[in-house]
Amino acid sequence: MPFDPATLLYNDAGLIPAIAQDAATGEVLMMAWMNADAVAQTLETGRVTYWSRSRQAFWIKGETSGHTQELVDFRVDCDRDCLLVRVNQTGPACHTGARSCFFTAVHDGEEVSD
Amino acid sequence: MPFDPATLLYNDAGLIPAIAQDAATGEVLMMAWMNADAVAQTLETGRVTYWSRSRQAFWIKGETSGHTQELVDFRVDCDRDCLLVRVNQTGPACHTGARSCFFTAVHDGEEVSD
Repeated sequence: MPFDPATLLYNDAGLIPAIAQDAATGEVLMMAWMNADAVAQTLETGRVTYWSRSRQAFWIKGETSGHTQELVDFRVDCDRDCLLVRVNQTGPACHTGARSCFFTAVHDGEEVSD
Repeated sequence: MPFDPATLLYNDAGLIPAIAQDAATGEVLMMAWMNADAVAQTLETGRVTYWSRSRQAFWIKGETSGHTQELVDFRVDCDRDCLLVRVNQTGPACHTGARSCFFTAVHDGEEVSD
């Protein structure tokens, strides 16, 4: 069946969450949002492209930082309201310089950073 | 620093997305939503508990199906608006019976199910 970005379920702001996972290691790197045009652009270009809610603009991951995400595998969940992109991540995914945005764990009620 | 669920950033509905990842294999299993009470309950009980948007009720994963998620690692992202729970998944995570909800890929413009 041909894939049509319009068949995904977007929230009231026209956005769908996209989880980025390192294709080589399986590490979950980040979660950001896409609109239908960002979905289409990601698939067309092979460069993962989000929608920046703060800037209200396309966010081609790594366009300014060089920390690009090359698309390896694009997946849709069972109820079509969440995406999983498996990527080749260049450099850190997180704006803090960490490899993954999920560097803070909660252990025994305390926050611990990796 | 002691972790307080109130310090997370919730959306207008009081919810935060939570990504569930198989702790053993690294497979991304599903994404669902938690409110502050579900976050607290997940940490207290070690049983991953979401908030069901359709039922407007706690959703203790596997309570009826037996397909429980035992919490292994609870993580917060850099801007505190997304969670990652690494779990021991009993049985399939997806209501369809699939191991993961992300069983549909897009390859060359076509939807392909695993």
